[in-house]
Amino acid sequence: MSASSSTPATSPALRTLARELPQHIGEHVLLQGWLHHQRHLKAVDFLLLRDRSGIAQIVVEAPELRDTLAAMPHERVLEIRGNAVASPQAPHGVEIHDPQVTVLSEGSEEPPLELFRPEMQALLATRLDHAAVSLRHPDRVMTQHLLAAAIRGFRETLIDLDFTEIATPKLLESAPEGGANVFTVDYFGGPAYLAQSPQLYKQIMVGALERVFEVGPAFRAEPHDTSRHVSQFLSLDAEMGFIQDHHDVMNVVRDVIAGMMTTMQAIDPTATAPIPVVPERIPEIHFQKALEMVGGALGQDLQDEPDLAPEHERWLGDWAMQEHGSDWLFVTGYPMRKRPFYTHPQPDDARWSNSFDLLFRGLEIVTGGQRLHRHADYLEALESRSIAHDPFTGYLEAFRYGMPPHGGFALGVERLVRQITGAGNIRDVMLFPRDITRLSP
Amino acid sequence: MSASSSTPATSPALRTLARELPQHIGEHVLLQGWLHHQRHLKAVDFLLLRDRSGIAQIVVEAPELRDTLAAMPHERVLEIRGNAVASPQAPHGVEIHDPQVTVLSEGSEEPPLELFRPEMQALLATRLDHAAVSLRHPDRVMTQHLLAAAIRGFRETLIDLDFTEIATPKLLESAPEGGANVFTVDYFGGPAYLAQSPQLYKQIMVGALERVFEVGPAFRAEPHDTSRHVSQFLSLDAEMGFIQDHHDVMNVVRDVIAGMMTTMQAIDPTATAPIPVVPERIPEIHFQKALEMVGGALGQDLQDEPDLAPEHERWLGDWAMQEHGSDWLFVTGYPMRKRPFYTHPQPDDARWSNSFDLLFRGLEIVTGGQRLHRHADYLEALESRSIAHDPFTGYLEAFRYGMPPHGGFALGVERLVRQITGAGNIRDVMLFPRDITRLSP
Repeated sequence: MSASSSTPATSPALRTLARELPQHIGEHVLLQGWLHHQRHLKAVDFLLLRDRSGIAQIVVEAPELRDTLAAMPHERVLEIRGNAVASPQAPHGVEIHDPQVTVLSEGSEEPPLELFRPEMQALLATRLDHAAVSLRHPDRVMTQHLLAAAIRGFRETLIDLDFTEIATPKLLESAPEGGANVFTVDYFGGPAYLAQSPQLYKQIMVGALERVFEVGPAFRAEPHDTSRHVSQFLSLDAEMGFIQDHHDVMNVVRDVIAGMMTTMQAIDPTATAPIPVVPERIPEIHFQKALEMVGGALGQDLQDEPDLAPEHERWLGDWAMQEHGSDWLFVTGYPMRKRPFYTHPQPDDARWSNSFDLLFRGLEIVTGGQRLHRHADYLEALESRSIAHDPFTGYLEAFRYGMPPHGGFALGVERLVRQITGAGNIRDVMLFPRDITRLSP
Repeated sequence: MSASSSTPATSPALRTLARELPQHIGEHVLLQGWLHHQRHLKAVDFLLLRDRSGIAQIVVEAPELRDTLAAMPHERVLEIRGNAVASPQAPHGVEIHDPQVTVLSEGSEEPPLELFRPEMQALLATRLDHAAVSLRHPDRVMTQHLLAAAIRGFRETLIDLDFTEIATPKLLESAPEGGANVFTVDYFGGPAYLAQSPQLYKQIMVGALERVFEVGPAFRAEPHDTSRHVSQFLSLDAEMGFIQDHHDVMNVVRDVIAGMMTTMQAIDPTATAPIPVVPERIPEIHFQKALEMVGGALGQDLQDEPDLAPEHERWLGDWAMQEHGSDWLFVTGYPMRKRPFYTHPQPDDARWSNSFDLLFRGLEIVTGGQRLHRHADYLEALESRSIAHDPFTGYLEAFRYGMPPHGGFALGVERLVRQITGAGNIRDVMLFPRDITRLSP
């Protein structure tokens, strides 16, 4: 098809997206979007129109239209009809010639952020204050597409494995895991608490559906003002019955992560953010062995450490890449005393547990493990930790009447996307983050 | 393949699900599940084992095993190895002969509800108090599968239409739509409010992603103790830019509903709950015309009514079935004064709005419409309703810098599944409902 500059008798009624332009070369097309930017040259102006699919380049030569456009602020919403002409150096290899421009919606002021720059120059606080504008930046749009794709990969992989989606309550009668960092709600005059995780409910549901997952908000009253701590995050949770031990859960985690990377890769095949490979078998190291290795390498005596500090996890991430060529590393067997009461001990040594974390480039992304399943074991676990039984009546009932060996995991998808995109702050991955200093917009 | 009663030399290592048994006739199989029920006859016992896929029937003849099983309570978790034999009258057309039974987990007591009865006899309050048990009933399991399928149909249809999934904040600085029925949270010493809907955020995101959807919890402090009012429900929300008017949104609603019915049908093809057909074009009636018709039919003067009462909606549902053979009916044009401030008026008569409800068998399932998109229109709408601007600063910014004509809708998926399954109470569709009298389990 050859380029044409003659206008057909009838105007196109159907909208074409920027990314679809290569299929419409030689046609008269209708575009709709935001005035992303203009470049004014001596004899011609270039107008960049942004829609949900990308950017289209419009060539403006008519003097009257050039004058009109010169006065328009960024972000005005426009409808543009014109001829699609092949142009190798333009976005998508297409330019629009002989445009007619209609204003769909008057943005009357210049926006407070420069969205047309490859990287936004504004500080984090400014970007967050003006989220309605900053979220339009192509980088932020891409991050949201990657996040949505990651969630989709999580769900689709689990549905293929016969998991059922559930929705559990976010308003709780008691603060189940100790009460620290829990938000209190005025619930018809009495207290209720915002759920920090769906843990207890997803376990109960193993009794009914065997394999369940949930994608939903989780709430933590984090008093720390850091790049990692936020009050609401998205928790991707799964739980499954009839396992041998935590390795059955880890196999599902591996497949889920691989599925997520596949859907993310499809979003951004040109890979501005390279999507990591997931090996068929993710390497695994026991916590005890990890402590030995890290302690030896860093010249620290960690034998009495109860947990791995962030610097230790980073060292392990480097080690996994050097030793196994893997961005991913399972650390298993965390000490029982550092894990919650429902954790299943390692059968041959009750100091350790049938639990795991998955590190991605040295950052914990997934935490999971096998849970206790016998009613008597729960009573004993609560007893030994001096936790009152009362708040757990409805939960313990699941175990009183027969629960299979089971386990599961929780995945912090925003942390994962942050780590992949290299975003400096978890708040650059979330839409409208909440923290101790921020509750709006 | 013929049935065999000889035991192979090696035991099967892989689990077979009840629904997979027809593919394993003549083989030695391994089943895992819950002791659903036993029928004791003179020479033989029948044991029903329930797993996530359905029920398997096990024939027990060995006297010693019969004695052991006779003492077992319902819901004990068992592993059963035996021979799969064709038996037309058994569930899935298969029986298990010569079973070996291993106890995987000791449920030691008889459960408080009889799960083996086709319908649970217990009262609603008892079922909810013992949710960990009652949710195992096959009817409740089927309801959860239908609910999950409906949500999946919603998402998949919208993803096919180029919508992007988002997650918006549930903790808000102000109670945006008036402040009634809002839960207050103690947010680091100051007040925050639980989101009643993602309305304002999904509109903002049209500016960045054009087409967005969210599946998430919504919270309402409903002071009424009825079969419909709960504190937390699942809201299925979508919003899209570059529309002509609300009919573009209604077209998407139609496709979404059709997609949901297709995924639900696939879950339950034998249709214990018949899945309704969605016509290519759902019939539509304007609010003004609906009032006239209902008023005439019921002998009521409704001309000054601001809204349709539930009995009016039921009448309209019957009318849609008789007149159009449709379970579904769009009512459009609701009075502006009954709709929220962001509602777009009907261009030719500002008493009415470019809004709609979708009735399913006379019950409102979806509500939606076109929104205002000009900044000046928002200022005027807030002014005329005497609503302060301050809480809306971050929201209004989206319109200040260019927003296309847009609209969207919210769908109450639990109400829809309740209406399809004929459940007496919305609480029979939710896992762990919350209301003014209930905050646990």
